[in-house]
Amino acid sequence: MTLRTTPFESTPQSSASSSLSTPRITLVGAGPGDPELITLKGVKALQSADVVLYDALANPALLEYLPRNAKRIFVGKRADRHRFSQQEIQFLMVEHAYQHGHVVRLKGGDPFIFGRGYEELEFAKACDIPVEIIPGISSSTSLPGLEQVPLTCRGINESFWVVTGTTQDLALSKDLELAAQSSATVVILMGIRRIREITQVFADHGQSDTPAMVIQHGSLPNKRSVVGTVHTLADQVIAEKIGTPGIIVIGETVGLHPAFQSARKRIIQQMIQS
Amino acid sequence: MTLRTTPFESTPQSSASSSLSTPRITLVGAGPGDPELITLKGVKALQSADVVLYDALANPALLEYLPRNAKRIFVGKRADRHRFSQQEIQFLMVEHAYQHGHVVRLKGGDPFIFGRGYEELEFAKACDIPVEIIPGISSSTSLPGLEQVPLTCRGINESFWVVTGTTQDLALSKDLELAAQSSATVVILMGIRRIREITQVFADHGQSDTPAMVIQHGSLPNKRSVVGTVHTLADQVIAEKIGTPGIIVIGETVGLHPAFQSARKRIIQQMIQS
Repeated sequence: MTLRTTPFESTPQSSASSSLSTPRITLVGAGPGDPELITLKGVKALQSADVVLYDALANPALLEYLPRNAKRIFVGKRADRHRFSQQEIQFLMVEHAYQHGHVVRLKGGDPFIFGRGYEELEFAKACDIPVEIIPGISSSTSLPGLEQVPLTCRGINESFWVVTGTTQDLALSKDLELAAQSSATVVILMGIRRIREITQVFADHGQSDTPAMVIQHGSLPNKRSVVGTVHTLADQVIAEKIGTPGIIVIGETVGLHPAFQSARKRIIQQMIQS
Repeated sequence: MTLRTTPFESTPQSSASSSLSTPRITLVGAGPGDPELITLKGVKALQSADVVLYDALANPALLEYLPRNAKRIFVGKRADRHRFSQQEIQFLMVEHAYQHGHVVRLKGGDPFIFGRGYEELEFAKACDIPVEIIPGISSSTSLPGLEQVPLTCRGINESFWVVTGTTQDLALSKDLELAAQSSATVVILMGIRRIREITQVFADHGQSDTPAMVIQHGSLPNKRSVVGTVHTLADQVIAEKIGTPGIIVIGETVGLHPAFQSARKRIIQQMIQS
């Protein structure tokens, strides 16, 4: 691969931007799915993009904000097919910045929450390309709330913890053992396929009856969710055929979900008294 | 306080919205400070508001999106002065929904991350007022990234944990003890005034040399930050006169901050090899 700068061209094919030849990269968080949950700043970046590299989890409706002649490259990774390796994405990003100017790397959720965004930032910096970061709303922090389950609630818990269900060495993260002993609302990303092992960790710490839920395609019209307890959740997910991508949420705050009528009353009483 | 519905009025003083008399409430996350870090959906809610109740941490520039004649009520709580109690805010919110229609409750960050948003949701529901939730970008999940510190980074950590530094009974959260034993990037909100006690918890778990930072007014032009280790951070914060509001970030990922030249190289090597 050769990295080269191209002179400014004012042909009808090129963007009208005067910064065409200045390579720069913007890492943009696309939000959890709903295209209206991107930030204003993210939209502005898209509007000035010469090239966009977008993920499977970034809503394609967001491409509407691109200038008409901007180049669109799908670099989505799905569990079942690997179109581009992480390294290839990084090369594409840098090569296109040198060739075309402003590259927007549009990533589902937030670029720095299990998105390998830091590797992209580091690679671009190593290639002397300036990088701007525009945070996004992560599914981990927003989907529970959209189900009326707060990540934190006064009188109930003092923290929330977001953990990956899939580590590099395929073991469960040791952090889950600690999370299961805390007051945290625990959100597990990329864990649906290992839900039985994950809920077992919580059961082993005496949390079989703790409220738990799974949310799939949250914030989108095809959203599905199941609500139960640590003990019941894995069976429910299998029975309801809930697949990826989805998040697992475990903690007392899940008991505030409208599905828990009596539990909710007890928790709210506790909250009022606190 | 009396809760009453008012008939639809089409006077020049009232909003042009035809839903004027239908009480409804939207809880909107205003984001971490930068007014461009609100969502499109949040802006749309403001544009259709009859009344807005806004916090000290919601950027007042966002009020520009309100219809000209919308009512603006500042209900900010600061550590040094309590203008409205939580209960008063909830009453105001409901009363104005009955009187004027669409109330936007604009909250700094995300409504359900240490924002007492759940109490507002619950109160509105108890008053039979429909509530929509629009997530926002929390300072806890976005400010580290804006400093080029990722919350998670492959090969370095497997989780991030957001904890409050100020619990109701004024004790330190027991969750901090667990967090200090995990791989998590730990983000502590509302902890600046207790930074010495908080860093001591990490030091007690053998983490004196772990990279740590404080970010004040992140995402805003008056942003300040200090970067050091668990051992040095409290003294730095005092020396630099960093005050509230600010967040504390502790974890190996903080070692990726540009201030750590040699540590960064070591971590990046580890990342590449993983």
